[in-house]
Amino acid sequence: MPDLRPRFDELLRRLGEISDVEHAEAILTWDQETGMPPLGAPARAEQLGALARIAHELGTAPELGSLLEELRELEQSSDRESFEASVIRVTRHDYEKKLRIPSELRAEMTRAASVGYAAWLQARDAVDYEIFRPHLERRLALTSEYVACFAPFDDPYDVLLDDHEPGMSTADVAAIFERLKAELVPLVAGLGEPVDDSCLHGYFSPARQREFSLEVLSRWGMDDQAWRLDDTVHPFATNGSITDIRLTTQFHDDQLVGILSCLHEFGHGIYERQVDARYERTPLAEGVSSSFHESQSRLWENIVGRSLSTWRFFYPRLQECFPERLAEVPLEEFHRALNRVAPGLRRVDADEVTYPLHIILRFELERDMLAGAVTPSDLPEAFDAKLRDYLGVEPRNVLDGVLQDVHWSDSSFGYFPSYALGNVISVQLWERATSELGNLEEEFERGEFGPLREWLREHVHRWGRTFKPPELLERAVGGPLDAEPYVAYLRAKVEALEAA
Amino acid sequence: MPDLRPRFDELLRRLGEISDVEHAEAILTWDQETGMPPLGAPARAEQLGALARIAHELGTAPELGSLLEELRELEQSSDRESFEASVIRVTRHDYEKKLRIPSELRAEMTRAASVGYAAWLQARDAVDYEIFRPHLERRLALTSEYVACFAPFDDPYDVLLDDHEPGMSTADVAAIFERLKAELVPLVAGLGEPVDDSCLHGYFSPARQREFSLEVLSRWGMDDQAWRLDDTVHPFATNGSITDIRLTTQFHDDQLVGILSCLHEFGHGIYERQVDARYERTPLAEGVSSSFHESQSRLWENIVGRSLSTWRFFYPRLQECFPERLAEVPLEEFHRALNRVAPGLRRVDADEVTYPLHIILRFELERDMLAGAVTPSDLPEAFDAKLRDYLGVEPRNVLDGVLQDVHWSDSSFGYFPSYALGNVISVQLWERATSELGNLEEEFERGEFGPLREWLREHVHRWGRTFKPPELLERAVGGPLDAEPYVAYLRAKVEALEAA
Repeated sequence: MPDLRPRFDELLRRLGEISDVEHAEAILTWDQETGMPPLGAPARAEQLGALARIAHELGTAPELGSLLEELRELEQSSDRESFEASVIRVTRHDYEKKLRIPSELRAEMTRAASVGYAAWLQARDAVDYEIFRPHLERRLALTSEYVACFAPFDDPYDVLLDDHEPGMSTADVAAIFERLKAELVPLVAGLGEPVDDSCLHGYFSPARQREFSLEVLSRWGMDDQAWRLDDTVHPFATNGSITDIRLTTQFHDDQLVGILSCLHEFGHGIYERQVDARYERTPLAEGVSSSFHESQSRLWENIVGRSLSTWRFFYPRLQECFPERLAEVPLEEFHRALNRVAPGLRRVDADEVTYPLHIILRFELERDMLAGAVTPSDLPEAFDAKLRDYLGVEPRNVLDGVLQDVHWSDSSFGYFPSYALGNVISVQLWERATSELGNLEEEFERGEFGPLREWLREHVHRWGRTFKPPELLERAVGGPLDAEPYVAYLRAKVEALEAA
Repeated sequence: MPDLRPRFDELLRRLGEISDVEHAEAILTWDQETGMPPLGAPARAEQLGALARIAHELGTAPELGSLLEELRELEQSSDRESFEASVIRVTRHDYEKKLRIPSELRAEMTRAASVGYAAWLQARDAVDYEIFRPHLERRLALTSEYVACFAPFDDPYDVLLDDHEPGMSTADVAAIFERLKAELVPLVAGLGEPVDDSCLHGYFSPARQREFSLEVLSRWGMDDQAWRLDDTVHPFATNGSITDIRLTTQFHDDQLVGILSCLHEFGHGIYERQVDARYERTPLAEGVSSSFHESQSRLWENIVGRSLSTWRFFYPRLQECFPERLAEVPLEEFHRALNRVAPGLRRVDADEVTYPLHIILRFELERDMLAGAVTPSDLPEAFDAKLRDYLGVEPRNVLDGVLQDVHWSDSSFGYFPSYALGNVISVQLWERATSELGNLEEEFERGEFGPLREWLREHVHRWGRTFKPPELLERAVGGPLDAEPYVAYLRAKVEALEAA
């Protein structure tokens, strides 16, 4: 076998450059959403477009294809888990996928997303879906064109899903969602009077919320050498490298929801932070799928962040931060309020139990739109009907209904399922972690979150994209994706609340 | 003549993409110096290197060369000042220059600058020049390699100077500097007791300083739609587009120098902000030279920002911000303190009279380093010796001496002269503006800074890089670069202070 090391180094050089451009894009997007002066927007759109086009061109260069051919031998002679084999395998997957997409279609999708986002904002301002409808039609047409690039396929939605959940089929997702729906629709319909969560509302100084959030996150593993936390309108996490993690949040002055969004974004951040440092500037240096990413945010926000044990440790400090509001509120009351379950209109405000139903209805509508069974003209009524059927709630207008999410304006179809799949995975991981590590709740009460974090590093984070999601899950929890632990978790949550 | 319009549009498309990548680089650099977590540094160096290489490759593409050939006819048949002719002319100048530089060298210089910046910060923290020395050696070696790309030349420093001061030779600069040195060394040596500036020292809340600075800058023309102001170690200004201007400063809690640095950076910002909007995403959309840029920062910081008239308007508000320190200090005392002349160690704190000597010594040391007459090992002692000779001051340590400037870590050699040349130009522009507009000081007293700002827009800013610097100066002031007005201005300043 010839010495392929120099060719592998050349592959790493090319991959490093692609990663550099993609991370530049991430930082420019972060800047756009955190601090960019408003008039910077038009030029920023051009800059992001240029970087996306350049990354796509670098990622489909014929020289990259030849390198991958040359390196087949190195891949086959290396251990499957080895750095070399994994880099070559994942690069080949990405390369073959990107090659299918004409760069003009990619550019047109980017432009349509940008225009669609502006139209969505306008439509919301005017409370008028008709302003947005033609843009949705355009995006749907482009999505169909995109899907067609990957023919043949069993289900057109498979193509979209593969961008976020490689290795999963639409049928897999539908099966999980049928199970959740069968369980949750009656559970939600049978809920008693929601608990009183008035202690979470009223004036809370944003500066104090920020201070408290940073204390929690420091305890969990954030530090100021490799992380930062900024304000934004729609919270998100991104990163400039494995050692440059950017969380964003929005602290409202009349509720504590900004703190929970910090805990959520921490989950995304710690995943990227704990990827094996050796993967830097390769396609391995990233969370393996959107659902795995969401499993981390959900785990830290919900399972850890809403647990009584966690608040046994942090609540006294929270009371110190907001004595005028919380000094008289017992821990148990605060904890119940934090775990309140009640059907509502808005996905982003939904509790753990009703949340999956918001996702399922969107997944179903996306499939129907792709199949032509629901057109953009039908969408508002179809959306409201599902809100009624699954959650028993009735939107007052399109802001509560079809216009509530940004995703159909500027993001790809196919992302929504990841949120609910993330919930499912989060409980599977949690059960496995506790079965291996013993009573983690006792650790939380003492302010010890390191054992859980290290377990996640070892079994999930460090691997980046080395394994496909189903394989990573199998290795981490010893089985396939399974909705049952999540269903049992939600049942227990509701029972505990009803009993309290 | 064939219709060359489509070819010109193709040129604009290519130039737009280059501009996009260069502005992405600017924002990533801004991020690096304002908020990036420290551990983000190594990956950031790679990202900046990749963008520099990509911009360089786009800027030297053979297709760009062919386009420029095809467009010769359009250039020659268009008015010299027209958008079309100017874009083609300036692009050709840049293209021919960039062709000399291998893209790998360009990328390596950018990486070394980013890494060098981190090492400079470390060296300062440790008060240890040796941490920085190897990086300076590396940068010097790369600089020599860069210079060699432009052989033959009269003086190697000409090559570096041309990056900042197109159309000027090292001999021109040396002549101006000899004149300044001959004037200023004896002037400084003969200074009487410096005025008492104790009113500028003591505790000043950084938050209040920031608030006050923003009030001044708003009055001058800053707004929150197209500008922002952030904290940094070494203040600078940059921009993401004509409508996205980033100023940075450092507010110390024991002096007011951060306010003056805001006024300085405003001059840079307003220059970029007032470039003709039509030039966006072309090589014309930038200040024409470093010295013209510095002339704007100096003009706003010194001529406007230290004038008695300006403070007649702003001082009452400053007293309101800091009543405990300034309520009892008369305007005239404050103004004299602000204009104090006394030799000191640090360039960035230097007054207007001693400032050029700090520049001249750096210019001389850069030439010596380039010639090998001073090595990075010799530099600390050589630096201190010149501080003694020209200014009669003695550094306590390397923070006061060789490590005080960021430039030898992250910027190109050849920049320092621009500061002093900027001073020279600023006085030439000021004299011309007042001769055309009448008594601007009276306007300042009333808080009116618009007439000066608009004069600068009309005669300097809007043109961007349309004209070469000597031509722009000729058009704006009716003559060539001339040190005499500046010398007279400094003499008058010293006389006024001695008389007070």
